[in-house]
Amino acid sequence: MAVTWVNGVPCDRIAVNDRGLAYGDGLFETIAVVAGRPRLWEAHLDRLRAGCARLQLPEPPAEPLWREARALCRQQPTGHGLLKLLYTRGSGGRGYAPPAEPEGTRILTLHPWPDWPETHWRNGIELFLCQTRLARQPLLAGLKHLNRLEQVLARSEWSDERWAEGLVRDGEGWLIEGTASNLFGVAGETLITPPLDDCGVAGVMRRNIMLLSDELQIPYEVTPVDPNALRGMDEVFVSNSLAGIWPVRGLSDGTVWAAPGPVTRRLQQALCAQGVVPGPGRGEA
Amino acid sequence: MAVTWVNGVPCDRIAVNDRGLAYGDGLFETIAVVAGRPRLWEAHLDRLRAGCARLQLPEPPAEPLWREARALCRQQPTGHGLLKLLYTRGSGGRGYAPPAEPEGTRILTLHPWPDWPETHWRNGIELFLCQTRLARQPLLAGLKHLNRLEQVLARSEWSDERWAEGLVRDGEGWLIEGTASNLFGVAGETLITPPLDDCGVAGVMRRNIMLLSDELQIPYEVTPVDPNALRGMDEVFVSNSLAGIWPVRGLSDGTVWAAPGPVTRRLQQALCAQGVVPGPGRGEA
Repeated sequence: MAVTWVNGVPCDRIAVNDRGLAYGDGLFETIAVVAGRPRLWEAHLDRLRAGCARLQLPEPPAEPLWREARALCRQQPTGHGLLKLLYTRGSGGRGYAPPAEPEGTRILTLHPWPDWPETHWRNGIELFLCQTRLARQPLLAGLKHLNRLEQVLARSEWSDERWAEGLVRDGEGWLIEGTASNLFGVAGETLITPPLDDCGVAGVMRRNIMLLSDELQIPYEVTPVDPNALRGMDEVFVSNSLAGIWPVRGLSDGTVWAAPGPVTRRLQQALCAQGVVPGPGRGEA
Repeated sequence: MAVTWVNGVPCDRIAVNDRGLAYGDGLFETIAVVAGRPRLWEAHLDRLRAGCARLQLPEPPAEPLWREARALCRQQPTGHGLLKLLYTRGSGGRGYAPPAEPEGTRILTLHPWPDWPETHWRNGIELFLCQTRLARQPLLAGLKHLNRLEQVLARSEWSDERWAEGLVRDGEGWLIEGTASNLFGVAGETLITPPLDDCGVAGVMRRNIMLLSDELQIPYEVTPVDPNALRGMDEVFVSNSLAGIWPVRGLSDGTVWAAPGPVTRRLQQALCAQGVVPGPGRGEA
């Protein structure tokens, strides 16, 4: 069962005039809770703050937010879970013009850990190639904002559990990301991930993997990838803050990859050593 | 003061796990209430149903919705107001995948009539040319969905009351619409409005004006318009379900037009005769 706090108070409802509902005027973060603690918290907060700057939203109060997150997570002291943080521009009058002095609404919800099979980490997953294309909007690209109809449409394209995730392209056919994850390929020794300047969500785990790559001296490139280039990759994986890294062993167009490949494996192990994703069976050696 | 009903019951809160909040997974309509009655109701419902089809949402129950709308409007039996109808995919678990059998949330809010000055109708307004560009997303174009960050960003560009509305372009520079209205120009005898196949909201009042144009034997064309073409128009106006028609007398780049021009005037009079926008001073002869 989910437990929710709104602005620091146990509550599971918000005002219908909240701009988060009216216009998707807000941001969110999905945070792994491992052994009762929210992980990569500062990285999530950094992205949230960057989103606030872009949307001209006042930043949420960092100290109460951390206190509330910790308190909620203590309700699951030994277990894993996920903490969803929504932050909106709060209540407002009718009309698009933002209030001059908005009072943001912060919503924290603690969810149970998703029941993904361990084989997702160990043997890899298969991806569905979606037809839904992402629009190019540099003003919003990279942000984890609340305007997510494109992801809903893409995720609606399949229901067969064979596909653990779907890949989405932009209007020109460049691969951008998964519906709820970022995409990486490995060509030779080099890690490759698509740029997110025009669309897509700049994942906290994506950034974390780039930092880990530096530590592990794995070179990486941010460069456009089309389906043909992906087919030629030696390894493919997707990442997000909850899953960490899922190796990819196939795509719905029939492409197969060896999974997990050696670079994917090294990064999975580094993630486990970091303690930012849950333990046994999640890709350890 | 606004009065709100959620799923037929007086209530001004919704569940934080409503997909309307989480993803903007829903639609809305803004409906003029004139002399206690919602206007152009069937046209609004038509657009809402078209949006449901596109988003694979079950349609809201038409009869209860109408009953609730009428009951709410009776709270303002002689006056004018506006009825905002939100319809979302309802509560859902975490994750983009829509529930197999969603139970939509319908939210009706009765607001007071906006206090726009009568000069907006009589002498025309000035438009601000926004820098925010609309992304091209044919899957969502035309719908009045809840993903409205582009409109929030565009509307944030100005606060000076001199500009009653802002004009937005797509990424290639084509004029699409106002932040909360549609755009029309008149060249000679012909009414012109931009296509909305790739972005923009297909306004109920835009469609109504096209139907009126047929009745009045005013030819119209749906054709791309750039700022240069707009400068050369004989008349310009914007429309929406509340304002009806506002003649445009200037743009923030210095362009001026005679306002209201004769075609604009004819259409304003036809709207008043229809009774779909409030009375005296709203453009009558």
